[in-house]
Amino acid sequence: MDQRKNVIVVAPDSFKGSRSATEVASAMAAGVRDALGSSAVVVECPLADGGEGTLDALATALDAATSSVATVDALGRKRHARVAISGRTGVIEAAEANGLPHVSDAELQPMRADSYGVGLLARRLLDDDVTEILLCIGGSASNDGGTGFLSALGARFLDNDGHEVASGAAGLTDIARIDLTQLHPRAQQVRIRVALDVDNPLLGTHGAAAVFGPQKGATAEDVKAIDAGLAHLASILAAETGIDVTEIPGAGAAGGLPACLSAFLDVRLMPGSDMVLNAVGFDRLCADAALVITGEGSFDSQSLRGKVVAGVRRAAPPHCPVVVIAGRVGLTPQQTRDAGITAALSIAAGPAQLSEMSIATTELVRNTAATVASMFGKFAGINS
Amino acid sequence: MDQRKNVIVVAPDSFKGSRSATEVASAMAAGVRDALGSSAVVVECPLADGGEGTLDALATALDAATSSVATVDALGRKRHARVAISGRTGVIEAAEANGLPHVSDAELQPMRADSYGVGLLARRLLDDDVTEILLCIGGSASNDGGTGFLSALGARFLDNDGHEVASGAAGLTDIARIDLTQLHPRAQQVRIRVALDVDNPLLGTHGAAAVFGPQKGATAEDVKAIDAGLAHLASILAAETGIDVTEIPGAGAAGGLPACLSAFLDVRLMPGSDMVLNAVGFDRLCADAALVITGEGSFDSQSLRGKVVAGVRRAAPPHCPVVVIAGRVGLTPQQTRDAGITAALSIAAGPAQLSEMSIATTELVRNTAATVASMFGKFAGINS
Repeated sequence: MDQRKNVIVVAPDSFKGSRSATEVASAMAAGVRDALGSSAVVVECPLADGGEGTLDALATALDAATSSVATVDALGRKRHARVAISGRTGVIEAAEANGLPHVSDAELQPMRADSYGVGLLARRLLDDDVTEILLCIGGSASNDGGTGFLSALGARFLDNDGHEVASGAAGLTDIARIDLTQLHPRAQQVRIRVALDVDNPLLGTHGAAAVFGPQKGATAEDVKAIDAGLAHLASILAAETGIDVTEIPGAGAAGGLPACLSAFLDVRLMPGSDMVLNAVGFDRLCADAALVITGEGSFDSQSLRGKVVAGVRRAAPPHCPVVVIAGRVGLTPQQTRDAGITAALSIAAGPAQLSEMSIATTELVRNTAATVASMFGKFAGINS
Repeated sequence: MDQRKNVIVVAPDSFKGSRSATEVASAMAAGVRDALGSSAVVVECPLADGGEGTLDALATALDAATSSVATVDALGRKRHARVAISGRTGVIEAAEANGLPHVSDAELQPMRADSYGVGLLARRLLDDDVTEILLCIGGSASNDGGTGFLSALGARFLDNDGHEVASGAAGLTDIARIDLTQLHPRAQQVRIRVALDVDNPLLGTHGAAAVFGPQKGATAEDVKAIDAGLAHLASILAAETGIDVTEIPGAGAAGGLPACLSAFLDVRLMPGSDMVLNAVGFDRLCADAALVITGEGSFDSQSLRGKVVAGVRRAAPPHCPVVVIAGRVGLTPQQTRDAGITAALSIAAGPAQLSEMSIATTELVRNTAATVASMFGKFAGINS
């Protein structure tokens, strides 16, 4: 028997709102072992897409130490957030500072919330002499185009009278010029890789305000005001740097955070899933795999745009089957195969409410992985 | 490439209350073709377990003509029912005469309902000179121990005064002796094979009254009375024939219909699924199969007791993988494998109500079959 047939890599994203990627990977591994016993060598590789859980995935991959740093949330209230450092590479998960989970629905202030707290974390890493920052930016509560972030590094956004404008989206239309004289001396030397979990542009119907504003509390009127503010910011940035941030895919992530960063700093935007796949050395991990099982809460058209599943399919060897296990499968088998995915299975065992399924997610994932592995073992002729 | 790898047999039961076996088989075949295109030779083989739909499956398998015969329902009301005849073999689906679907909930009379109408169908076949009757008995509304059936063939159930007892369960305890002098002359010459869809005994906690009485309208008191009546009948049958019908597995099917038949006629009881599998020549059909896909509405512990799935597993070549597709999967992967089934997949694509799933059953079955076939093709190295 060909020993290589036995390597099975389980590499899921988290099931958002239900189980972490580590928990899902562990359940998948248990299911594969249930079905194949010692005939299988299972490699567990929890992944992330740049959103919640990405810091953990990167810290594990880089063997980085995490520490807790004083900062502020999207409304300027004191809180602590983790940063991870490995060698001279630092990792920030923006949502640990200005994330939506730290602001209750009643507290949401879409015009005022800012990314200052994220900038404070970056400042700390600059002070710690890192030369590279991996910045994961999903799940923010702000819409400030990154002005807060840059302010925390010393930039000043001034109005026509030379006064600093209000923070957050509210102040954007008042910006007349940007003063970088007090910018942190290392801000423009550090390499920043920004992990995106969406590829939306800064402005317009697919932009930061229209698509993500409402979940941050923006009314229809707020959405218009934020879009106008970000458009004004983009025009100022273009005037001062010659860089048109409205053309950058993904600049609409995290309330436009990449806008200011792309204009002034040494920034490279990339899908968060790719950043994690690179960090864990995924292509090496699954070079000998006979089967890769990935998964996420909902497998749908979004999954094929910069998410973990798409990244796994790209990074796995072309002839290696990739099977998706998901809470919900929203693509047809044909759409699934067209994306190079062998099959996608829901963990549902029959009619069930979302709430019932959420409670049983771990067991359902394990059973579904066992089902896939059992078919793999039988169809491919591996003994169990 | 080994051409035998390409034969895929789809052999489901019906999804009860939702889709016929023929519809399910057709959807499965479509799904397999979706995934494997011309690389697959798909053999459609709709099956049945002795209950609803078995007449159709047997008529197709035997290439039998069906005709409509005047009879009565469980309450003695006139209706027509189909019988199928092929050569000198006749097929009856008892429920076409005395089935529950023909009696509304308000009309249910568990003490009075009888199997006389089923006997009339048998009488017609005897008159037509058949030498073998395939009698499928699931889904009845009666609890008469087969007294009605035998009455229709000429038997008389007499009380101590020599009067005929009341029909149905109500008369059972009054039976003192059974007069066969007017029995149809061919009744004891014809071979009767009874297709069971359950293996319950006649009496007791797993018996006809306790388990199936309530769905036929029996109150707790009725259940006791029916059980006592059937026990009395069994004692009379033992006294007159020496046959103890309380020892026969399956004698509790269809309100104890097999009791009188087993005592007096040339009867062989068998799982309905086996009868259908034999009739279609299933073992020959799937001798060259690389994969068999079966299925039913609910795959659970019942499925492993005389149902289609268990029969398919027994009849398929031992090394041939058998995969179950079901509306609901109630067994764990381990229980599934212990039964020799490679895997069982629900058609659910995520959280969903039963009603939503029922509407979409055909599409969901097709998608799930495509998912299985896609894995089969990829894992087994078949090109699509």
